Amino acid sequence: MSGRVITLLTDFGMKDPYVAEMKGVILNIYPQANIIDITHQVEKYNVIQGAFILASAAKYFPKGTIHVVVIDPGVGTKRKAIIIESKRYFFVGPDNGVLTMAARMDGIRRIIEISAENYLGDKFSLTFHGRDIFAPVAAYLAKGVKIEELGEEIDRIVEVKLPEPQIKGERIFGIIIYVDSFGNIITNISKEHLQRIGVERRLKATMRGEKSLELKICRAYGEVEKGEFLAIIDSFNLLEISMNQGNAAEKLKVKSGEKIEITI
Amino acid sequence: MSGRVITLLTDFGMKDPYVAEMKGVILNIYPQANIIDITHQVEKYNVIQGAFILASAAKYFPKGTIHVVVIDPGVGTKRKAIIIESKRYFFVGPDNGVLTMAARMDGIRRIIEISAENYLGDKFSLTFHGRDIFAPVAAYLAKGVKIEELGEEIDRIVEVKLPEPQIKGERIFGIIIYVDSFGNIITNISKEHLQRIGVERRLKATMRGEKSLELKICRAYGEVEKGEFLAIIDSFNLLEISMNQGNAAEKLKVKSGEKIEITI
Amino acid sequence: MSGRVITLLTDFGMKDPYVAEMKGVILNIYPQANIIDITHQVEKYNVIQGAFILASAAKYFPKGTIHVVVIDPGVGTKRKAIIIESKRYFFVGPDNGVLTMAARMDGIRRIIEISAENYLGDKFSLTFHGRDIFAPVAAYLAKGVKIEELGEEIDRIVEVKLPEPQIKGERIFGIIIYVDSFGNIITNISKEHLQRIGVERRLKATMRGEKSLELKICRAYGEVEKGEFLAIIDSFNLLEISMNQGNAAEKLKVKSGEKIEITI
Repeated sequence: MSGRVITLLTDFGMKDPYVAEMKGVILNIYPQANIIDITHQVEKYNVIQGAFILASAAKYFPKGTIHVVVIDPGVGTKRKAIIIESKRYFFVGPDNGVLTMAARMDGIRRIIEISAENYLGDKFSLTFHGRDIFAPVAAYLAKGVKIEELGEEIDRIVEVKLPEPQIKGERIFGIIIYVDSFGNIITNISKEHLQRIGVERRLKATMRGEKSLELKICRAYGEVEKGEFLAIIDSFNLLEISMNQGNAAEKLKVKSGEKIEITI
Repeated sequence: MSGRVITLLTDFGMKDPYVAEMKGVILNIYPQANIIDITHQVEKYNVIQGAFILASAAKYFPKGTIHVVVIDPGVGTKRKAIIIESKRYFFVGPDNGVLTMAARMDGIRRIIEISAENYLGDKFSLTFHGRDIFAPVAAYLAKGVKIEELGEEIDRIVEVKLPEPQIKGERIFGIIIYVDSFGNIITNISKEHLQRIGVERRLKATMRGEKSLELKICRAYGEVEKGEFLAIIDSFNLLEISMNQGNAAEKLKVKSGEKIEITI
Repeated sequence: MSGRVITLLTDFGMKDPYVAEMKGVILNIYPQANIIDITHQVEKYNVIQGAFILASAAKYFPKGTIHVVVIDPGVGTKRKAIIIESKRYFFVGPDNGVLTMAARMDGIRRIIEISAENYLGDKFSLTFHGRDIFAPVAAYLAKGVKIEELGEEIDRIVEVKLPEPQIKGERIFGIIIYVDSFGNIITNISKEHLQRIGVERRLKATMRGEKSLELKICRAYGEVEKGEFLAIIDSFNLLEISMNQGNAAEKLKVKSGEKIEITI
């Protein structure tokens, strides 16, 4: 299809009619839309997790893609509804930080606070802006409506950042920012952090106060035997702890948000 | 894309190849199809739940959309396979009531019992009409085949309705018809029912014989503190019991099908 | 849409950004792609289960469809990355057998070991070939790049086959190859196996050493009462044990991989 790509990222889950309602609204306004789901299984109300997944996935999409995100605990309150125009994309969603990390990575050009009565009318629910504001705004953008027709430019948005790890001597004190469905443990510790404490090909990781794991930094899971732990620098440039053909997080009983300590 | 929209709503879940088989069949007949999933996670064989989700989502789709529903405990028995033409849509599926509520809301024009040997051949499984009858019929409709070529007109279909709440004095005796993945508790009690017992801005709700909750009727979740219960009138015009940024159903340990009693 | 169909079948689950990253990569190269999910809920690393689901679903798709499969425990090791051209399709994925069953059923024409530096560059992760090799190769194929430009022809691939049941006298010793979300128990026992021991309209099935079930071979679930067990020959020509409107596998507490014994 040659219509614009509109991606959807929400915490709605897959069983309710809500995602489909958004798609119906989009197709009503812009039938050519190529709607792609990023995921709808972000933990409910977890803005940081949504921001991280958006930042991971958004950059692989074609120039001109419109990314719509609805992780929106503040729906119906004073929080703004915004569009961010970045170098290659549009991001549409609530102004709670969920869009910021991905937009900053691409380079922000303009931010608009949505106030598009002439497009949206003045009748919309205060509980489902995904369907009544963000979906139609994305469809109008895809259709070619100019961003400046959809609201007023603003110059400040809510920021969220991955927490920075602390370095003390030869120790890095970080946290687990995400555990994927394979059990890969993604940390907030980058390759540069590791280099600063002199890590080269091996490191020691301690989680939950247990005795430390000695890990080889690998490029492929298969560099260690099946069932063994390893460390990897992922395409986000972050340290991951994994198990070859096994579930590292389950084995270590760790979850997103927990502490991790790295030494040589 | 500019092809017709075909939506799919089933109780097939997401792990098996069955939904993909339906999509393959559709694309074989009508490659331009824009296939949108409503959901495949309706509770197995729960015709009423499917009917409710279809009625919620269908109306947001463009005129001409073909809605295919396969919640079909009676597949291979005498139950009919039908097409309902409504004001704006076609509905395709089993004649067990799952299509009726949505079709009635849009305004039924014609009902056809499918008997399309010249399109479907005479070899199809008796266990998977979704793939062998409903998917190809939807694709032929999308392609422009006339509804009257796909079977004979009939004048009666199986009805399902949401159960009506009982009003006795100042009490409404209703039921929970759906609990969504956020834990919002959707009842069969409408705004009009509430008005009849004189509810204005507050009400009392009793579930599971527990002591009653005093609830404010809000327009947005954020009108109460995080973790507090509230009442809302949803876009279906029905009473919902929710918790701001929390899971009301989990907290109250209630499920779809249970009783709820409302007083002033 | 009139672009080529690209299907995706993985063990990635639905919560992570990985499937979306593959879709973004595809749409970057070939914006007309009509991307259809077969499923992403194959059990992690279960190559045989993936092979079975692919073989079930692939054949329903239009001629020219490109089937991409990423169930890839050996990613980053010496296992090859391959394209199989069959009579009607292209299959793209790891050379671990996951593609073989479906490709053999359609009739293999050519096998290519992917080595497409001029298309892929030489920078790709060793942990996610789905995004960095298989997705772009599929998109280039869809775009019309000739298969011979994407690598060198080879003449051998890894085979996986459903295990053959053993027949001893009037007994068939088979296994359960798949349990679907309805609880249908799919075995490796075909209609022909049943005929060899003289089964006609009834059979006895023993699982987990329990006392045997006497089952009628039905064409539709509704031929027995609600809640009763039955046997069915499915569209794969294999014996399934089911329960009318119930979950046979849950009731019998059996799982994929377990033994089943059939007698008259």
